[in-house]
Amino acid sequence: MSAGGEFDYIARRLAPLSAGWPGAAGLKDDGALITPAPGYELAVTADTLVAGVHFLADEDPAVTAGRALRVNLSDLAAMGAQARAYMLAIVWPKDASDGLREGFADGLEREQAHFGVHLIGGDTTSGPGPWTISVTAFGEVPAGRAVRRSGARDGDLAVVTGTIGDAWLGLQAELKARPALDAAHERFVQERFTRPEPRLALAEALREHARAAIDVSDGLIADLSHIARASGLGVRMELDRIPLSPAAEAWLAAQADPLRARMQLASGGDDYELAMAVAPGALDALTAGSGGAPLTVIGRFEAGPPDASVTWRGEPAPVEHGGFTHF
Amino acid sequence: MSAGGEFDYIARRLAPLSAGWPGAAGLKDDGALITPAPGYELAVTADTLVAGVHFLADEDPAVTAGRALRVNLSDLAAMGAQARAYMLAIVWPKDASDGLREGFADGLEREQAHFGVHLIGGDTTSGPGPWTISVTAFGEVPAGRAVRRSGARDGDLAVVTGTIGDAWLGLQAELKARPALDAAHERFVQERFTRPEPRLALAEALREHARAAIDVSDGLIADLSHIARASGLGVRMELDRIPLSPAAEAWLAAQADPLRARMQLASGGDDYELAMAVAPGALDALTAGSGGAPLTVIGRFEAGPPDASVTWRGEPAPVEHGGFTHF
Repeated sequence: MSAGGEFDYIARRLAPLSAGWPGAAGLKDDGALITPAPGYELAVTADTLVAGVHFLADEDPAVTAGRALRVNLSDLAAMGAQARAYMLAIVWPKDASDGLREGFADGLEREQAHFGVHLIGGDTTSGPGPWTISVTAFGEVPAGRAVRRSGARDGDLAVVTGTIGDAWLGLQAELKARPALDAAHERFVQERFTRPEPRLALAEALREHARAAIDVSDGLIADLSHIARASGLGVRMELDRIPLSPAAEAWLAAQADPLRARMQLASGGDDYELAMAVAPGALDALTAGSGGAPLTVIGRFEAGPPDASVTWRGEPAPVEHGGFTHF
Repeated sequence: MSAGGEFDYIARRLAPLSAGWPGAAGLKDDGALITPAPGYELAVTADTLVAGVHFLADEDPAVTAGRALRVNLSDLAAMGAQARAYMLAIVWPKDASDGLREGFADGLEREQAHFGVHLIGGDTTSGPGPWTISVTAFGEVPAGRAVRRSGARDGDLAVVTGTIGDAWLGLQAELKARPALDAAHERFVQERFTRPEPRLALAEALREHARAAIDVSDGLIADLSHIARASGLGVRMELDRIPLSPAAEAWLAAQADPLRARMQLASGGDDYELAMAVAPGALDALTAGSGGAPLTVIGRFEAGPPDASVTWRGEPAPVEHGGFTHF
């Protein structure tokens, strides 16, 4: 691309995404300015996506843009924060087409409008490796009220929003591993994988009524284990109670080994639902404040060694692979 | 590496780097919390380094860690901010050795202590491409007092700290392009390339006495042009006045084409000095507050088309390549 390509792309496609944030200085400065409202703190989180590792390299770049934002906003949701702004660090592949760049900017434009967030800065470069997108997202949370992983207590319920395992099925469908799904169910799980919906609407109820939270990115079992470990507790999960979509139920019904299949759904990751520790007496209030998000109790945090145990039909079930790790 | 490798590395090497920042929650949470002191704003900046593009792939990883921090802290310095914290997003190469990971953590540990900053969060993953390090750095600046690129006015002096072109010579030495330098000069320019010193000590004087600033990363001519463009002005630079180190002077004396050689030094980038627009009447106060950093007037901002012009011995000199662009 021409020597002016980088500056031109920033000026033409990225700078307009910062127009709503005066402290971004039109992306023309060394950095941006951000200040939380009085009485608030900033919640900050970062997630990196690498083509071929975290998403398929031939994915629509507008969808990739959405995923890059959504996985970060989901972390803010798990802290009980309201999303405000993001920084973007891109390493383009050497052979990046104009279509890739334009589609990516189209996606950012659409998605940031949907979530009401603003691009405030970052860095673009290119390299010999795969396309790499690193987003740092900023949210606001009332001072001292952020929901952390470490707040669970003995006897708290393990609660999860929505349904679990759809994104894993969606990834299998994208990989052409062809789970036995009809066309409508396949579209549903692919959408769950490609456009996860961060549970930002729960932020206030979470701050008021949950003791700990995490977003389900590594896999439900792994992520509940993270809460347990951070809180110095154990967690017992009942595989029977994990909420499944009609698509996942249909897939499950066709599997020869229902325990193994359920374990796959509970370990697959990328659902971006919220998993929480909730005092038994606070569940009704959390439900009332959840804005209609389905909540399911799937287990309990208990004093004991900081570990996860899983049961299926009342019997202990071995956890082979609790979730995703990168190396 | 084993399935536990990622979590183990974070717990063993990265989490201790967050110990001084309670809002980082030991890197065990979805995100970190950060709040500027009352009356202050946060300045935020991000820079990505790719092995083989921004640094040599066989560089000591502790040096790479330092560079990743320093180039970001330099952006904070250019805004007149005090550095406080950073987020780190790493994509390890598939074949990353334990030595690479440990050396990188050693470097971060040493460098963050030197600059008094804290690791507060981020993301680690791995991929098939080169090692990629993206840092987002946070600083504090009194509300409304950040120094921006857009503040220059007609008649302001173009002022630069330190000496220019050393890092470019250092890169040539690293690339074994063997500039004609004796051993001591070669060590000096290599050090300037590998361990740039962000001009954080100037932050207060910059806020008080400079109208606009940028750090010299793309090349002095390009970076002064960025100030000029952001301020809607032109800038005239005198190549004769660009401050050179004894090493650069020695190299220059051996070059057949002194104009071309000076142009190379003024276009090379990576010096991480500060280039500023300073009202003529404020230069003495800026000098007095600079903590001993050498300041040199090398030109002037003027009303006119937002562009850069360069003279050499009083004659216009053509700018072939004003600085670095990534694609």
